[in-house]
Amino acid sequence: MKALVLLSGGLDSSTLLALAVEKYGADEVLALSVLYGQKHKKELDAARNIANYYKVSHKILDLTPIFSDSKCSLLEHSDEEIPHEEYASQLKKTNGAPVSTYVEFRNGLFLSSAASIALSNGCDAIYYGAHSDDAAGNAYPDCSMEFVAAMDKAIFLGSGEALHIYAPFEKLNKAGVVKEGLKLKVPYELTWSCYEGNDKPCMVCGTCRDRIRAFELNGVKDPIFDM
Amino acid sequence: MKALVLLSGGLDSSTLLALAVEKYGADEVLALSVLYGQKHKKELDAARNIANYYKVSHKILDLTPIFSDSKCSLLEHSDEEIPHEEYASQLKKTNGAPVSTYVEFRNGLFLSSAASIALSNGCDAIYYGAHSDDAAGNAYPDCSMEFVAAMDKAIFLGSGEALHIYAPFEKLNKAGVVKEGLKLKVPYELTWSCYEGNDKPCMVCGTCRDRIRAFELNGVKDPIFDM
Repeated sequence: MKALVLLSGGLDSSTLLALAVEKYGADEVLALSVLYGQKHKKELDAARNIANYYKVSHKILDLTPIFSDSKCSLLEHSDEEIPHEEYASQLKKTNGAPVSTYVEFRNGLFLSSAASIALSNGCDAIYYGAHSDDAAGNAYPDCSMEFVAAMDKAIFLGSGEALHIYAPFEKLNKAGVVKEGLKLKVPYELTWSCYEGNDKPCMVCGTCRDRIRAFELNGVKDPIFDM
Repeated sequence: MKALVLLSGGLDSSTLLALAVEKYGADEVLALSVLYGQKHKKELDAARNIANYYKVSHKILDLTPIFSDSKCSLLEHSDEEIPHEEYASQLKKTNGAPVSTYVEFRNGLFLSSAASIALSNGCDAIYYGAHSDDAAGNAYPDCSMEFVAAMDKAIFLGSGEALHIYAPFEKLNKAGVVKEGLKLKVPYELTWSCYEGNDKPCMVCGTCRDRIRAFELNGVKDPIFDM
């Protein structure tokens, strides 16, 4: 039994990798990270460092060409600014439609790529770090648990019943994930979440706000702010 | 309303393109073809010729790196030979598991890539050429109608309910697809199906056998054999 872990280099997927390594052992885990034209490419460096820390094999896949026509503000080729406000306010402006940092079917594409690579490498599990407040009120429809269940069914059927998605954090919120990670002693100082590609986290983008709150709720200071 | 058509350059997807152009008009149709390391790369030339014939925009996506670890006999880097027998006999040898020309979750990956590109280009429909005997008795689990329905659900949910898969041939077999195509005057002489990458179709691989039979059942000679 082998597992492929989708590893962005952020907080959730790094905790996920720690969990998978604990369960399978480092030799039976393959980490996969994806370049897709994101402004915050430095999450790939974080992914590399985390994979090295856990001594697992690590693949980096470049899917940038797929998003060449995307207008998403998260992408390097976009002139649009990344919003600096809570997802709830962003959703008011979009009338409930996906927010400007939604990358078109990105997570479906990542899971499908993961499925192809997992099957080629003898894995029967894809580990996926989605958690209960990940969809942020449908700001990101490809993060909802309903979506993950639908993808799991497609992957199970399309693989000849050889592969499943596991989302062990599906019942947890982000603070719950950090709680798990603190127990597992995840080296959070190596992770990267901020959507901006600067030296320091911006502290105001949606993902910075979520991360700050998750550590606060655990009564712990996020080690990334000591760097 | 715009449609993205997954176009391999084979018989089914070329008929599909003809149908989509009839319904939407050439300006509202975007064709997508994928390079994935297949031995029969010349299907891409066929796709290009068919897209030119119908005067639609055409994108070619290279997903070869995703299959670098695949052992599938269909791929250029594989030393394994493509079986020269009916799918039923192949399935006996694999005990019902996917056959050696099954490319790991290929169609799920194609549909997911199509979803990302469709959303970036303002399409609300992905046209997909799957038909009723495409799965060949689960030789290709990522061709079954159950699989297509699961992918459709995932794409609908993951796109914020903005996109659906349409598989207009789902109730037809391959002969039925050819029947439709003959009505639509599809230039079948421009298409390519054979899994081998040679000058002439091999006539004995699974897909050549299926194609020959589909034309025979329509009482028509396949124009590709006149080339």
